[in-house]
Amino acid sequence: MSQIEDFRDYRSKMNEKLLSNDNKVIKRLYSLDTLTYQNSALDSKTKEMLGLVSSMVLRCDDCIKYHLETCHKLGVTTDEIMDIFGVANVVGGTIVIPHTRRAIEYWELLHKEN
Amino acid sequence: MSQIEDFRDYRSKMNEKLLSNDNKVIKRLYSLDTLTYQNSALDSKTKEMLGLVSSMVLRCDDCIKYHLETCHKLGVTTDEIMDIFGVANVVGGTIVIPHTRRAIEYWELLHKEN
Amino acid sequence: MSQIEDFRDYRSKMNEKLLSNDNKVIKRLYSLDTLTYQNSALDSKTKEMLGLVSSMVLRCDDCIKYHLETCHKLGVTTDEIMDIFGVANVVGGTIVIPHTRRAIEYWELLHKEN
Amino acid sequence: MSQIEDFRDYRSKMNEKLLSNDNKVIKRLYSLDTLTYQNSALDSKTKEMLGLVSSMVLRCDDCIKYHLETCHKLGVTTDEIMDIFGVANVVGGTIVIPHTRRAIEYWELLHKEN
Amino acid sequence: MSQIEDFRDYRSKMNEKLLSNDNKVIKRLYSLDTLTYQNSALDSKTKEMLGLVSSMVLRCDDCIKYHLETCHKLGVTTDEIMDIFGVANVVGGTIVIPHTRRAIEYWELLHKEN
Amino acid sequence: MSQIEDFRDYRSKMNEKLLSNDNKVIKRLYSLDTLTYQNSALDSKTKEMLGLVSSMVLRCDDCIKYHLETCHKLGVTTDEIMDIFGVANVVGGTIVIPHTRRAIEYWELLHKEN
Repeated sequence: MSQIEDFRDYRSKMNEKLLSNDNKVIKRLYSLDTLTYQNSALDSKTKEMLGLVSSMVLRCDDCIKYHLETCHKLGVTTDEIMDIFGVANVVGGTIVIPHTRRAIEYWELLHKEN
Repeated sequence: MSQIEDFRDYRSKMNEKLLSNDNKVIKRLYSLDTLTYQNSALDSKTKEMLGLVSSMVLRCDDCIKYHLETCHKLGVTTDEIMDIFGVANVVGGTIVIPHTRRAIEYWELLHKEN
Repeated sequence: MSQIEDFRDYRSKMNEKLLSNDNKVIKRLYSLDTLTYQNSALDSKTKEMLGLVSSMVLRCDDCIKYHLETCHKLGVTTDEIMDIFGVANVVGGTIVIPHTRRAIEYWELLHKEN
Repeated sequence: MSQIEDFRDYRSKMNEKLLSNDNKVIKRLYSLDTLTYQNSALDSKTKEMLGLVSSMVLRCDDCIKYHLETCHKLGVTTDEIMDIFGVANVVGGTIVIPHTRRAIEYWELLHKEN
Repeated sequence: MSQIEDFRDYRSKMNEKLLSNDNKVIKRLYSLDTLTYQNSALDSKTKEMLGLVSSMVLRCDDCIKYHLETCHKLGVTTDEIMDIFGVANVVGGTIVIPHTRRAIEYWELLHKEN
Repeated sequence: MSQIEDFRDYRSKMNEKLLSNDNKVIKRLYSLDTLTYQNSALDSKTKEMLGLVSSMVLRCDDCIKYHLETCHKLGVTTDEIMDIFGVANVVGGTIVIPHTRRAIEYWELLHKEN
């Protein structure tokens, strides 16, 4: 389980550091980020899937992990995740494949966790 | 209506040219592209929304237009589109704004068309 | 002068449309964008130069134009602009050159305007 | 023929403007750009094909046009160009398709020119 | 030799996982990827060089390693590799340098392997 | 201190390898890179800040570290760094956040070093 916990610990520790510097722009961006995935016309689950596919085509491993976690919590199935991987790899091309390999590994770790 | 029709005409004319050269890789990519958005674990509508948000963060105006058209056909509402714009602009940053301006213009044109 | 005015008109017209849809995420992102370039530890002029170089390496022509306008208002000289172009082209590579061509054209238009 | 000539004229006019400002970094980058595609371990033709595929995956239309011109001069065939398009579209994904449409149009214009 | 083998093992293990989920889009993309680099108008060696330079400008370390391996098998020389690095760094800019450092390290490891 | 020193050692060792291959293009790019950040119309400090923000929006961790080091040497304060982080995160979006977390960690390490 340590890969998941290491990731979570590092993320929250560094987020605290960043926010402790009291920079208004950074603080508002963080609160905007939270607002973005709340239920509105689209529900959180759909928005998290949108966040995941965006992170994949932009090839940001940490962002992918984060959205995989929330997708997992919100009940996205493995078949749905594979569909998201499909869109990401076709739109973004084969350079997305290495990130997809790390994504499937993390997705499985999340399932083993509980 | 001409901006929409010009876009469609150019796209289909050039797609024909590309496919007429009989390059196997290009042909299979085009058919894979079609397959990608068909109903499977996720339905077409959700997949088109995934395609739209991906096109926005990757800042491809023509791809955005294409997915706006299919989203429109599949009944995505303006409030849902605005939510997708929201995710795209927060994940991808303010460099997505100019593409969002062109997207809202095209979205309105699609509504005027029928 | 029309290229400048066309750009300004289109931008403000479409921004209005986007904001009129009353999407909270989009609205807050716009106000965050304004906050970002205000005087703080770094002054507005330096921040606008940071915004310009970022827009160049990310190759967003409309963003470049916008920051060229604010840089011009804040008294950035042509030699300073050329230095920013230099950093952008070395960091981002020769794919930035076409955007730099359009940037120098717009920079000259701004000077002719007043 | 005018699309080709307009492109060439604009490019050389703006390059002159950029170089006339006498910025050392910009000047050296331009001369480095020229050096890059000269015969060395790989010949110019192969290097231009490398420049073309790079421009495609980075989705820079003007860069694509430029390398299409040099590829055309150096005798790259349409079948070879289609192979380059294939690599670019598979590596870079379907967001490269709109640029490929504009590329095939320009490639045909170059053939009609002589 | 372990860095090379670790990379190969992880890649094939995760590819298996991805393909075992039986997602049609992912499966066809993988087979399209194989097709892309086969001899056609351009030979495999040239296509692998195109794949390498594309991976470099898109800054995908795993993709770079993969194409370095195939380039090595197909007899690309170190001087030719350096030429590819040159094109990638000039087109993509100095942000490609860190990836080029990791690429030269991997290239040397491949030579030590046999 | 070891993370900093590991980074410096690897960088200089691999740079040597790359330069020892005597490729003209790579050599000139390296010397152009040095020239880019020297005092001219803008001073080195401002240029390094431009280099930092560019590296952030392009999401190149090693480039970020390098510019953080030079910014630190040239007396950029933590509040100024936070302003740069702000511009980078707003322009480039939340995908820049993970890189910002690693940047603040490295920035603190640099302060502990002396």
